[in-house]
Order: sequence, then structure tokens, then C-alpha cells
Amino acid sequence: MKITQTPLVILNFKTYLESTGEKALQLARALEQVAEETGVNMVAAPQGADLWRLSQEVKIPVLAQHIDPVDAGGHTGSMLIECAKEAGASGTLINHSEQRMQLADIDTVISKVTAAEMISVVCTNNVETSAASASLKPDFVAIEPPELIGSGIPVSQAEPEIVEGSVAAIKDINPNVRVLCGAGISTGDDMKAALELGSEGVLLASGIILASDPKQALLDLVSKI
Amino acid sequence: MKITQTPLVILNFKTYLESTGEKALQLARALEQVAEETGVNMVAAPQGADLWRLSQEVKIPVLAQHIDPVDAGGHTGSMLIECAKEAGASGTLINHSEQRMQLADIDTVISKVTAAEMISVVCTNNVETSAASASLKPDFVAIEPPELIGSGIPVSQAEPEIVEGSVAAIKDINPNVRVLCGAGISTGDDMKAALELGSEGVLLASGIILASDPKQALLDLVSKI
Amino acid sequence: MKITQTPLVILNFKTYLESTGEKALQLARALEQVAEETGVNMVAAPQGADLWRLSQEVKIPVLAQHIDPVDAGGHTGSMLIECAKEAGASGTLINHSEQRMQLADIDTVISKVTAAEMISVVCTNNVETSAASASLKPDFVAIEPPELIGSGIPVSQAEPEIVEGSVAAIKDINPNVRVLCGAGISTGDDMKAALELGSEGVLLASGIILASDPKQALLDLVSKI
Amino acid sequence: MKITQTPLVILNFKTYLESTGEKALQLARALEQVAEETGVNMVAAPQGADLWRLSQEVKIPVLAQHIDPVDAGGHTGSMLIECAKEAGASGTLINHSEQRMQLADIDTVISKVTAAEMISVVCTNNVETSAASASLKPDFVAIEPPELIGSGIPVSQAEPEIVEGSVAAIKDINPNVRVLCGAGISTGDDMKAALELGSEGVLLASGIILASDPKQALLDLVSKI
Repeated sequence: MKITQTPLVILNFKTYLESTGEKALQLARALEQVAEETGVNMVAAPQGADLWRLSQEVKIPVLAQHIDPVDAGGHTGSMLIECAKEAGASGTLINHSEQRMQLADIDTVISKVTAAEMISVVCTNNVETSAASASLKPDFVAIEPPELIGSGIPVSQAEPEIVEGSVAAIKDINPNVRVLCGAGISTGDDMKAALELGSEGVLLASGIILASDPKQALLDLVSKI
Repeated sequence: MKITQTPLVILNFKTYLESTGEKALQLARALEQVAEETGVNMVAAPQGADLWRLSQEVKIPVLAQHIDPVDAGGHTGSMLIECAKEAGASGTLINHSEQRMQLADIDTVISKVTAAEMISVVCTNNVETSAASASLKPDFVAIEPPELIGSGIPVSQAEPEIVEGSVAAIKDINPNVRVLCGAGISTGDDMKAALELGSEGVLLASGIILASDPKQALLDLVSKI
Repeated sequence: MKITQTPLVILNFKTYLESTGEKALQLARALEQVAEETGVNMVAAPQGADLWRLSQEVKIPVLAQHIDPVDAGGHTGSMLIECAKEAGASGTLINHSEQRMQLADIDTVISKVTAAEMISVVCTNNVETSAASASLKPDFVAIEPPELIGSGIPVSQAEPEIVEGSVAAIKDINPNVRVLCGAGISTGDDMKAALELGSEGVLLASGIILASDPKQALLDLVSKI
Repeated sequence: MKITQTPLVILNFKTYLESTGEKALQLARALEQVAEETGVNMVAAPQGADLWRLSQEVKIPVLAQHIDPVDAGGHTGSMLIECAKEAGASGTLINHSEQRMQLADIDTVISKVTAAEMISVVCTNNVETSAASASLKPDFVAIEPPELIGSGIPVSQAEPEIVEGSVAAIKDINPNVRVLCGAGISTGDDMKAALELGSEGVLLASGIILASDPKQALLDLVSKI
């Protein structure tokens, strides 16, 4: 399954203990099982140090959570795109609200990711920054109003106009850019609404990671599409 | 071999292509062989995404290049200390000149690393910041005048007074902190001089990574101790 | 004279000693004299601590060099838009290559500046980021390829396609956004070329600030328009 | 009155609207009046754009809230130490919890401030970072546990051991460094306790700025010393 097949479910593992190391592997296996059982495209975005381990053990695509805008050389503590790729990443999140980047650096990283034939997923916070990101030619823009992240209130319900407005603005600038929808998404109804508003998938995190049964939560999520 | 056994040689892999992925593994094997052949304590500090792979494949200690000052939770793109540890890291570099940190964050990370029973190596740039770091109780302070990094001019020769002054200032504040010496170190004479100035090891990078034969360069490095 | 009257010459004072304090005042007087003598719209962008003094003493518009994306409250060391305005600023530079900002923060600051009825001038580095910035609805986009800043090689000559491409991309997204052109501009020919490529003014710095006779350099600059 | 005369009261104006522009001037006049009436040394630390105006209008010392660790040259949006000095600043706060700095940069700025014969006030958050800062030879260390800033709970009451421990650790490393105490201080009892714990003054903000009558709040503050 390629990342570009939609609908797409990306699970951002963030830095929860419940999605680190051995538990990251278990969570990735839950994603893999749900992908096999339902045919929905599931993608894992673990911490950098878990990329190699997950990509060796599971058959779903994995993404980095962040790539630094640096060339090969002396950049201690950064992660090179080539390193992420060799560790098995098929692409990367860019500019997540917990790792905001400078405009010029977002442009640089998208260019590097595209040159490496990997997938770029730029996170944005409103209609204006979504439109701006479309000019930088990423594969996906994931719209996530920061105030809803981790809130349990789905953006598709609380601020549907941001999703619809972003889809319209993005497509107007670059119809090849696909739109994902994040922040507060966790149920089948949330995901259904997200797709109806014009997005082609979702970006999730704590709603699944912290669920008592993540696999069941994922099955619920895709139950209405 | 534990990291605390000195003399200590830490190789900072930085983000060179010559020390990324499969090549990181080869370089780590060269370190391992030199450690076995000479008995000198060799440590690898690869990019985060290479930690697990190296720690699974080689028998020398590995360090992270950087740990973010965050608790478990929502910190996309950061690396948790628990993640580095589970990926096999025995400790971490902190505040490298290419990844400078805020004073309060250096303190936070040293505390987290110590609580996790891992090794902390704080990089500093002069006598004053070396003395300041000693108050934060790291295991090691690695003094590296930034203007000499990658210069090929060894700090032990160009500015011996910075090494001697740092050793004196650090020991005066906290005699348990050990001192390493970096920047421009690559030959046996450099390393010998570094130890004679009171340091208990070296932190190296491009002089070894970019050598035509890194294993031979490492053998030369430790030939006079 | 309002900032919006074009052609526009903005002099970024940066942090040169030649454009600090009393010397900032002298430089602003040179701008004022040239504006009076030639009728060309001249604008000064001094350091924050010189804003009040200059705005009290000269009759040309002054801009801040940077505004922090913060609301009123506890943000020690930041400059509030309200503070810049009360100190006499008519607007601000945003995202200069020496003070790059996160995408979401650029959007926030443009919104604050517009709400305060001040002028926003967003600096960008290439066609893609210029287009992206246009979606954020600033008054001006100033395109400055970083490699040419301070080089003495005018962008209008070295990379005219970046200026033309930016003008086209920006106008396509938002025809109300005006384009300035920076980096390496210092002579009358440079400015003439910049206007012919579709820009409506220039953003300058060291070419004027460090000139032996800044007033004469400014007169030369506008001599061919 | 020189800044070094103790007991010292520094009022950090932060970025409140109540301490910006014209209101910054009124607040500085309240400080000036209380200094004249009580003989206690009062210092104002306004936003950068208010430095010149305040230093022209009032006879108490003013401090910058932050100085960037840059040399003269191309650093758009930064504030040069020379600019702050010419705008009337007698010194600067450094590393406030709302403007944390890298360790090496704190060292750089203290050196620049000292070379300019100005006063350095480094803010710290606990005993360890206070001790670390003492090695960098500032004039003052202001200890402010971040969790108490703006809380209304005085550090001298909630965590007296942090103040006493910091005083002891700082004096042990460098007896010339003086200690201030911040976070939650607003009443005469708070200030009295702060001095009894070994500090030589206080750093305040919202408790005074947002008081219904700032001058009266300042008179109360110094009423028991």
C-alpha cells in the first residue's frame, strides 16, 4: 500500500510512553492488522529512534515526525532526510503544531523530500496557512486548528468551515495537493464527516494512542467510510 | 565496557552521509574493532534514527547526539529520553555547538539523563561555560572551542590554556565531573596532548569520519596513549 | 507621504553601528532630505530602541524591523505591535532572512499589523515562498534571495527570473499585494531594473548604510526612475 | 542612584498594555516618585522601543529586557548592546524565563554588557542554574522559579530554600555576584522575607503593573525594609 492511496489514516505517535519503543511496535502492529482487515491505508509516524525498528517489523508505511532543513555535514542532533529514508521512512510530517518551522525551511524540506521521492505532509492551522502551504507543492496538507488538538472535539464538527475553506483554497492554488484533517478526530462519525468536508484522510494521535484498546479504536474510526 | 571507563573516545557521527545508515553501521564496526584490538573505550554517537540498528549490531556503547527537554506527551518531532534508552543509547551528548541549548534545558536534560541512569556529556565552548556546566552535575564536560571544530587544528595545540583552565575550573566546582576535549583532534599526538592537559578522553567527528580509512585513523589516534 | 505610495525605498538599518542611535538619526535625515528633494517615498527601518527617537525627529515613515507574534502580557524581551505603533512605527518588516519566522507566526503578525492599520512587509527568498506569503494578505512582499544579501550583486541582474516569477506568482494569488525587490541593490541602474521587472520599490541596507556618503548614494539610487 | 546600590527594586514592564508607551512613562514616573520619597533604588525595565523615551523623561535607571548575542552588522530585528546603551539603558535583564537563552549566548551577552560598563542581571530558575550563572560573572542573578511567576505566591514564602540555596551556591562560586529574588513578590512582607533570605533586592512585574494603584503598591512593597 502506498501512502498516496486514500482515504488515508496517519497516526502521529508523538512522544507518549504508550507509543515509544516496544509499545510503538505493538501500536504499529495494530495499525497493520486494521489495514489488512479493512483495506484502509494506515500509516505510522513514530519517533525517529523507532523508525528503523518499525519499518523492519511491520508492512505499513512509516513517516518521520520531523526532518531538519539541513544538508549532509556538521549538524549534530539533526535528522537528515537520507537517514530517515534509510531507516525506512516513506515520508515525513512537516511543521506540526508542536514543531513549527520557518516558512523558508518548510519550503526547503518539501523540496528535499520530493527530490528523495518521499511523501511530504505539511501541517497547518487555518485557511490562510493552508493556502500558503499549497504554493510550496507538498503531497498533503493536514489542517489542524491547534486549539482542538488533544481536545476530543473533532475539527470536522467544531470548525467545519476551516476544513472546507482549506480544501477550497488549497485546490484553487494547486489541485494536486491533497488535504487531510486533524485535531480531535477519533470516532467513525468524525472520520466520515472529515471525508464529506473534502479531506482525503485524517491525522490522529492521542485519541487512538491513549485508547484502552487502540486496535478497536481504529476499527471504529474507519467503520463508517 | 562502560562509558565511564577512561580514556574515552567518543565519535560524533553528526549528519555526514559517510556516517548515516549502512555507513553508520560500518563506522561503528570500525570503532568496535579498534576497541577490541586496543582496549581503549570507544563510543559511537549516531543520528537518532540509527540508534536502534547500531545498538543491535555492535558491542560498544552508543550515545544519542541530542535529547529534547520534554516530558512524555505531545511533543511531535522530539526525542524522549525513554525512547533513546529503549533504542539502546547509554547516554547522550548535550548542548553540542551545532545544537546549543538553553541553560535551563541543559539542566533539565542532565537531570532526566541521570534519573534514567544514563551518561550525560555536556559540550561547552570556553572556560566560563565549562565551569557553569560543572554546577549542573553532568558526568562529562566536553570542551570544544567552536572556531576549531572541523578545522584540523587541535585544541590541545592551539588553545591548551582553554583545556587546562576548564579542567581546573570544573574540578574546583565539582571534582566528580570528568573532562573531555574536542575540536580539531585527529592524530595520536593530539590525543596524547589532550590527556596530558588533564582531559580523560576526546570527542571527535570529521577527522575520523571523512578519513580515507577510519579504522586506521582510530588506531593512529590511540597509538600514543 | 504614506508608505503605500510607490515607488518605495525602504532602508533596513539592521544592526550596524553606522545606523544606530545618533547615527541612525543622521541616516534618517539623509532619507528625509532625499525624499523632499526627489519626491520619492523613503522609509527608515531602524532598531526598535531607535523608533521613538526617529519618529519624533524626522518626517518620513518609520518601520519596525520585527514584531513578535505575541499578545499583550507576559512576554519579556518581545516587542508588542502596540508598542511599536506608539513609538511611531507605521508598519514592520516581517520574516527578514536574518530573522526568519515560523509560517503560523508570519500569519499571526500580518493579522495583528493589519488590525492595527499598519503596513506589513514580508520578506521572502524565492518564488515559492513569495507565492505562499501572498496567501497571507500582507501589503508588500519583498523578495530577497539570501545568497545575494550584502553581496553587491543586484538580484535584478543576477536572478531577474526570481523577481519576475515572484511578481507573477504573487499577483496570480492576490493582485492587491505589492512586490519589492531586495538583495544587492545599490545603484540607479539596479533600481531601474527592479522596477522594470515588475516590483514597485526596493529594500536596501548595507549598500547605502556603509556608503561613504549615504545621501549621495540614495540620490544615485533614484536617479533613473 | 546607581543600579548597584541595594536594596534594589527592578520592575520588569514585560509587554503589558498597562506598561507600554505613554503608560510605560506613567509607570516609570511612579517608580521615580517612590525612589525619591523612600530612598530605595528603583529601576524600570521597559520594552526596547520605550527605552529612549523613558530614559529622557525620568531620573531612575532603565534596563533593557533582553539584548541579542550579536555583534554589529547584519542582524535585522535584533537589538545591539550599543543601541540599548545609546537609548539610555544602564544594563539589561538576561535569560528571563520568557526569553530563555542558550548557555553560550548568556556568556556572550554578559561579556558584552560588562565590556560596555553596563549592568547584567541574569534570571535563573533553581539552585543549579543559579550556581552555573555565577561562573559567568554577572553583576546580579535573579532567581525566579517559573511556576511562581505571576502566581501571587511569593517565592520567599513558597520555596525559601531555593532562595537561600541559590545565595549560598552563588556566593560560594563568586562572592561578587549579588542575588535578587523574583516570582510572586508584591507585598512589604514578601520583600522583607526576600532580604532576610539573603537576597539584595527583588524583580517584580504583574503584581505592581496590574495593581489598581502602582505607586501605592510600590510604597507598600518597600514599607518594611
